[in-house]
Order: sequence, then C-alpha cells, then structure tokens
Amino acid sequence: MAAIELELGPVDRYHQVAVVGAGVIGVSWAALFLAHGLRVTICDPRPDIERRVRAGLREIAPTLAQLDLPVGSLGDDSAALRFDPLVATAVATADVVQENGPEQLAVKQQLWAEIERGASPEAVLASSSSSIPASAMGESMREPARLVIGHPFNPPHLVPLVEVVPVKGADAAVVERAVAFYRAVGKRPQVLAHEIPGFVANRLQAALFREAVYLVAQGVVTEQELDEVVTSSVGLRWAVAGPFQTFHLGGGPGGLSEFLVHLGPALVALWSQLGAPSLDDPTTELLAAQAAHFDGTVAELAQRRDEAQIRLLRALGGTPSDATPGP
Amino acid sequence: MAAIELELGPVDRYHQVAVVGAGVIGVSWAALFLAHGLRVTICDPRPDIERRVRAGLREIAPTLAQLDLPVGSLGDDSAALRFDPLVATAVATADVVQENGPEQLAVKQQLWAEIERGASPEAVLASSSSSIPASAMGESMREPARLVIGHPFNPPHLVPLVEVVPVKGADAAVVERAVAFYRAVGKRPQVLAHEIPGFVANRLQAALFREAVYLVAQGVVTEQELDEVVTSSVGLRWAVAGPFQTFHLGGGPGGLSEFLVHLGPALVALWSQLGAPSLDDPTTELLAAQAAHFDGTVAELAQRRDEAQIRLLRALGGTPSDATPGP
Repeated sequence: MAAIELELGPVDRYHQVAVVGAGVIGVSWAALFLAHGLRVTICDPRPDIERRVRAGLREIAPTLAQLDLPVGSLGDDSAALRFDPLVATAVATADVVQENGPEQLAVKQQLWAEIERGASPEAVLASSSSSIPASAMGESMREPARLVIGHPFNPPHLVPLVEVVPVKGADAAVVERAVAFYRAVGKRPQVLAHEIPGFVANRLQAALFREAVYLVAQGVVTEQELDEVVTSSVGLRWAVAGPFQTFHLGGGPGGLSEFLVHLGPALVALWSQLGAPSLDDPTTELLAAQAAHFDGTVAELAQRRDEAQIRLLRALGGTPSDATPGP
Repeated sequence: MAAIELELGPVDRYHQVAVVGAGVIGVSWAALFLAHGLRVTICDPRPDIERRVRAGLREIAPTLAQLDLPVGSLGDDSAALRFDPLVATAVATADVVQENGPEQLAVKQQLWAEIERGASPEAVLASSSSSIPASAMGESMREPARLVIGHPFNPPHLVPLVEVVPVKGADAAVVERAVAFYRAVGKRPQVLAHEIPGFVANRLQAALFREAVYLVAQGVVTEQELDEVVTSSVGLRWAVAGPFQTFHLGGGPGGLSEFLVHLGPALVALWSQLGAPSLDDPTTELLAAQAAHFDGTVAELAQRRDEAQIRLLRALGGTPSDATPGP
C-alpha cells in the first residue's frame, strides 16, 4: 500500500518545478519534467537563455516522443514553460527545485542560500551535482538537511538512474519525497546510504575506464576494439543484470557463494594485475589520436547511439513513461 | 570485397567441428555450431556425456529459436551430432577444433599434443581457455603457432564476443581463419594484439567488480542496489556504445580530446580514491549474505536474465543469426 501511495501521490502533489541553471543537464531535466505534465520555470541569468532552452527542447522532443511521452508542452508556444532569472521568484511556487549550477562550491552555496530563502518549506530541494557533496553545498543553508543530491546519469531525459544522496542525519521523509518525485517522472532513483566522492555510477565507470586506458596504452587493443569488446560482452550483460547478479548466476545453483569459492582466488589474482595508468601527455595524445578513428562526427555518433539506446529502452520496457503524467 | 569473402567463405569451407570437452561451455558452443548447420563431434571421456549433452542442447534450443536460428539439429534424433571419446578419431575429419577442457596446464598440453597429431593440417585449432595462454598450452605441440585462444564470454550461444588471442609470431592466416569461422557462426570476434592475463573483457569486468565489492563493503549500497545502479546507467550505455565512445560523445564537438582536457583531472582524482578491497572472510561472508536477497532462485533469475538478454539482442539486431547457415 505504501508503495502505491508513493507512486501515485507525487502526480497530485507536484505540479511545478524550478530548474535552476539550464545548461545541457538543466535543459534535459526540463524536457523530461514538461513531458510528464509538470510546469517548469527556468532560472538562469544568461541573456540568451530562452533561445538556448527552446533550441534544446526542440532537439530532445523527438527522442521523448519515441519513448511514447507527450511532447506538446516542449514546443515554442508552451504555456507550461516560463523563464525567471531571479532565484527568489523563480522558486517561490515550486514544489521541486532541481539545481544544475556551475560545479563550484562558492556558487552552489550562494545559490542554495537563495533557493532556501525563496522556496516553500515543503519543496523538494535537489542538486544535480556530480562532484560536490550536499553537506558542503548546504553549509550556507539554515536547514542543510533538507538538501539532497539528485544526480542524474547524463542525459536525464534518456538514462533512468538518479543517485539520491542525503546528508548525514537527513529526515527520512526528505529522502522519500525526492525518491517519489523521481519515480513519478519515470526515473529509477537509487538512495546511497552515505556520501562518497563520485557516488556509485561514476566510481564504477572510472574503475572500468582506468583499465580500458591501460589496455589501450599497452597496445593490447585500440579504443574502437575495446569498445567492441564491451558492447558485445559485459555491456550487454550489465544492461539486464548487474555485476553481482551476473556472478551470482555464474556460480551455478550455489550462487555467489559458490562463485567466490571457485573463482574468487582467480579474481583476486587478476585484481593484482590490473593497470594503474596516468593521463600524462603521451597517453592523452594516444587516446586523442585514436579517437579520430571513430566512424563519424560526434553528432552522427551521438544520434546513432541515442537511436540504439531508445530501441534498447523500449525492448527492456524501461522507458521513462512508467509514471502517469500529472494534470 | 575481402570482407564479403571472409563472411561467405567459411560456410563452404567449414562443415565439421570437434568440440573437445563438453562442460557448460562446450555444450553451448555445440548448440551454436549445430544451429548454424555444422556437424559436431563431441569428444569427452565421461561415461554419461551423451545424456548430459543432449539435456544441455534441449535446454538451449528454445533460446536459439527465439533468436531465429534453426534448431532442428539440436534434437535427440540429430544426424549432425555424434560422440567419440577418442581425441585422435574425434578430430580427424574436423575443420575446426574448439577445445574446452579443464583449466589445468598439464591437461591442456596433453590434449593439444593429441589434437595436433590427429587433426588435419588445415584445421582451425582454438582453445576456449580463459586463463591459460596459448603460448603455454602449445608448448607440447610441434607447431605451437597454429593454436589460438578463442575465448567466448559465457554463454557462447548468447553473448557475441569471442576474444581471439594468437601466440607471438603466429601466421596472420591462422588468425584470419579463426576470425572468419567465428563470424560465420554469428559471433563478434575481437583479435588481441598480444597475450595478457585475463584478456580484455575479464580484466574490465574485474576492474568494475573490484570497485563494486568496495562500495558494498563500505555500506554505500547493497549488492542489489549496486546492480540497479549499473542496469539503469552504465550498463544501458555500454550495451550500445563502449567506454571510449561514451566519453568521446561526452566531450561535445571536440570529442575525447576535449573530454580529457575538461574532465581528465577529475577522473584521475577519482582513480586515486577507488577502493582496493580483499576477498577476506568477512567480505566474502557479507557478499554471500546479501546474495540471499536476490528475488528468486538462481534458475529463475537466470531465465529472466536470458529472456531480457534476448529482447535486447533482438532490439539491437545483434543476434547470432547474421551468418548464413551452412549446407
């Protein structure tokens, strides 16, 4: 019963979101919120922000349409979208504030002090920050425990994960409301028990990438070959079952225990042989030189990648359309 | 033109495969080969091997059928399948020998000496070994440079990758013939420039898993939560674009060079913070205890995972059916 309330509640409870800072991440969030029937106020002081945001929304709309979301309110004549460069008024009637300001501690602290002053005491206060913990950003706030990290995996309109990281001692209700909101807009929020640099997804990504750089630097494979290895093996696996379940199923009927008994020692031996490359000049030059051999421009590759991503999301039923749009 | 010859040639050239050692991997290979119209001889000295293999093929057949492969020759009355416990006669008429014996150097060396004596000088000689390099296995052979690693990512009938690892100084033709053969049965072979422990996919997997174990041991997330993080972020990404392309596209129009300029320092900082857990008793016990919370038995989870995997392979068009079945 509690789960149902959590999933249905936010649609009624949350009508308006303030998107503070509308770079690439902010625009992607705005698109997703609009497609879920929410009203969005963009708060960004740049003079050409309206043009930038509208261009971004036009670019994202076809992708969301392919995921079966209504995109009427992403158009230039949208009544659901407004712009307000002043934090105080932009957040005043917001049920949720999603902040995507520059990744600089002083800027974030100032923003959050202003947001807290202007926002309703009931509003969900979330930062997209990937590198600054909520505890540091919140030092300027009267009630720092209200702030949570709501870190999307880029781009938020397409990739389901949101890492929700509360500060130490945060009220459980604060976390629950943030989680409920992200679920209502079709995301798959994951709460971390405590702050850690890089959170979870970026740490895992960094760990694999470190070994990837090592293998390319050692001349075992090229970048493109390594990418092929990943997309034709672990990538396919991890899209449907994570690393623990993969090894749990690799252990036979005994599961992960059995796996660790039989393959644990080989795994530990392999850990001891993994590389520790640096990104010094020769390595960076090698990586940049090989990147020239990707088959297409960045824009072309990105389009192909996103098309494949959409096919995959549709196949797995994991589209951002599992929440009922709000009124 | 060369690519077309490589893809069409093997269908005419390869008719018969000897699968030496028919544990889980051997049976999976056998199923794939049979579904591609090849004749298969199973060489395994265990007295109940026929019963085991037939049971395995019955289990795999529905999966291959869902990938649109013909599975008539996987049935109990198959004329394409025979059993021969003697290496000399099992490999005598084989165009390809795929060896999947126990991962023990002495056993492998003895097997390969026997296989070489019995096989045609033209046959492709490949080992599925994940941990013993071809150079070590081949020490017992007259022509060790004929042997390549053809390491599948488990299970070979479902996951496209085959890592092809030649010994130093191997004839390019030997490598090409192995690659052409794997392509003809719908795999995505990837040649490594030189031997390295764990090859590429298992090293990358081990690198990510090491950090995964660390994060669970630190209490940041549970196993199931970490798996959710992966399947809803990097897993989805890496199923369609590998780690280098992902960062190449993350750099904007300037690609990977631009990415490394802006985010390289943050990445290196994160590398320095990654964990180095051990699989000591408390860690192993924690991992085993949390594994009890997966939602289903290993068999149930494996079935759901494979169903999702098939949907994904179909959505991406990367099914093992891209080769024309042989006569």
